[in-house]
Amino acid sequence: MYVLIVYDVEEKRVAKVLKFLRKYLNWIQNSVFEGEVTEAQLTEIKMGLKKITNKEQDSIIIFKARNQKWLNKEIMGKEKNPITNFLD
Amino acid sequence: MYVLIVYDVEEKRVAKVLKFLRKYLNWIQNSVFEGEVTEAQLTEIKMGLKKITNKEQDSIIIFKARNQKWLNKEIMGKEKNPITNFLD
Repeated sequence: MYVLIVYDVEEKRVAKVLKFLRKYLNWIQNSVFEGEVTEAQLTEIKMGLKKITNKEQDSIIIFKARNQKWLNKEIMGKEKNPITNFLD
Repeated sequence: MYVLIVYDVEEKRVAKVLKFLRKYLNWIQNSVFEGEVTEAQLTEIKMGLKKITNKEQDSIIIFKARNQKWLNKEIMGKEKNPITNFLD
């Protein structure tokens, strides 16, 4: 399934979250990751994020779409991570 | 249609983008807006963003889904804007 994660975490935890999410997903913009993952990987992601973030201070939103094609993506301005313009 | 906008703009333009997008969408996290808009409104949003941002320096990604239900949303940690936990 396609997953998009946006997060707003305290400065001291940003590097850890970045390093962790890079193992599973593509960085596309500051505090924004996307990619295809399995249900098991998503569970790992959630458990890992729980460990390295503070639920009172940090905010993480996970968007899931069973099919990538249901979500059209359009980039305006600078493309921060030009891996794919459109999800292939 | 459901729209999710994530942006990474130069500090001096953040307030302007925030004020502009608030007219159309719900703020859910730093640099993240979502909501239901018509095709015409989305065109207005894009034109407005073009005017108030710098395409060499700023990055805006617009995700669109024809149907909100295709995109499941899960919040971990602090809910920055507790209007709706799940898209109703």
